[in-house]
Amino acid sequence: MENATGIVFAADIVDKRKLLKTVEEVSPYVEAIKIGNVGLLEYGWPIIQMIKQCTERPVIADLKFMDIPDMAKIASEKIVQYGGDGIMVCGPVGGDAIAVCKTVLSDKIVIVFTQFTHTTGLITDEMANEYIDLALALKCTAVQVPGTLPNRVRAARERVRDQMLIISCGVGAQGPVIGSAVAEGADYEIIGRYIYDPKSPFEKPAAAAKSAQAQINEIASKHGSRARSE
Amino acid sequence: MENATGIVFAADIVDKRKLLKTVEEVSPYVEAIKIGNVGLLEYGWPIIQMIKQCTERPVIADLKFMDIPDMAKIASEKIVQYGGDGIMVCGPVGGDAIAVCKTVLSDKIVIVFTQFTHTTGLITDEMANEYIDLALALKCTAVQVPGTLPNRVRAARERVRDQMLIISCGVGAQGPVIGSAVAEGADYEIIGRYIYDPKSPFEKPAAAAKSAQAQINEIASKHGSRARSE
Repeated sequence: MENATGIVFAADIVDKRKLLKTVEEVSPYVEAIKIGNVGLLEYGWPIIQMIKQCTERPVIADLKFMDIPDMAKIASEKIVQYGGDGIMVCGPVGGDAIAVCKTVLSDKIVIVFTQFTHTTGLITDEMANEYIDLALALKCTAVQVPGTLPNRVRAARERVRDQMLIISCGVGAQGPVIGSAVAEGADYEIIGRYIYDPKSPFEKPAAAAKSAQAQINEIASKHGSRARSE
Repeated sequence: MENATGIVFAADIVDKRKLLKTVEEVSPYVEAIKIGNVGLLEYGWPIIQMIKQCTERPVIADLKFMDIPDMAKIASEKIVQYGGDGIMVCGPVGGDAIAVCKTVLSDKIVIVFTQFTHTTGLITDEMANEYIDLALALKCTAVQVPGTLPNRVRAARERVRDQMLIISCGVGAQGPVIGSAVAEGADYEIIGRYIYDPKSPFEKPAAAAKSAQAQINEIASKHGSRARSE
């Protein structure tokens, strides 16, 4: 990821033509592309390769992986095989499964999902802290922390200090304004609908992405982004 | 699922021709087919439809779903669209996401995953109990409980009494002998490698499946299967 602060684009678009076109158009304004299970299950692993052909940004397979180490190995190998640059793995899988992802993906991106954005998810703050500590111990690239819970972003930043990236989901359409998670200490914000389903005054995804990038940059320069403050 | 006790076949086979052929051959001896992320991510949702054409058994999409309710809706709708008969959803997603699966899948199969078979998974017995209670409250079809943890199968049976099915994973290749989970109170055992990668004296998956079915039936008649003992 090129810049110290910015957008991970959640490319949750089912229509393949629209998905690939949108990725291509918004790539100048985002730091990475995240392809979730909506797209992965629609088209299978080859969609990673297709997206790679439309962008120079890293492509992260957001499997929200939740299975045994044997399956973590298979999934990670598939991501590598299809040219992907990273995986999102759920904290509850524990150290062995995350370590398998780390080993297979080598110097690529391993993000540990720590907590849900929806309030009825059953991961407590204490459990999320355990996953954050585990990600830190295993030298993962980042933890995903909900942008809908500003106190959790702050807590995660205090916990990981400058040792790990924080990527915040749920920003934009789910409520929190663009830049709010970065203001609390996140490095990147995962933004989907705000970009691929742009509302007035934005007529196109690229315009929404460009504006979101500018908003995040402004917040980062105001609050001093983590990278800048070091 | 036709019989009160038996096998859920874990069809974790990557090669499509072998996958479909194996499903067809073992169907007479199993109660349901479970297609996991290995197969789903290789071929996308259409693999559900292809499997349905090879079997009259229910086909369960084992997504180990771990995401927000909005995504649960999309995933469940896709399973219905492609003719699937059920979903596996992870307990930590909580009540709202599981309820969405229940609503969209209607009278189909909703199984709540409660705990890992690998020892480094970070779901405690207390957390698993919470997921079991939730599945019970939401009138889900079944809970998945590790066959590798006999005490957990017994505890789950005491907890759900005759109100919900128990499906045990990790039986066969991961260690526990065929029938051991049913002996502890499970209704079905998820069996994969033992069947699709048969060891001597079995030359073919169907022979391994037939033998596993006979072993489970023998155990059930000896211990009195849950359904029979009511």
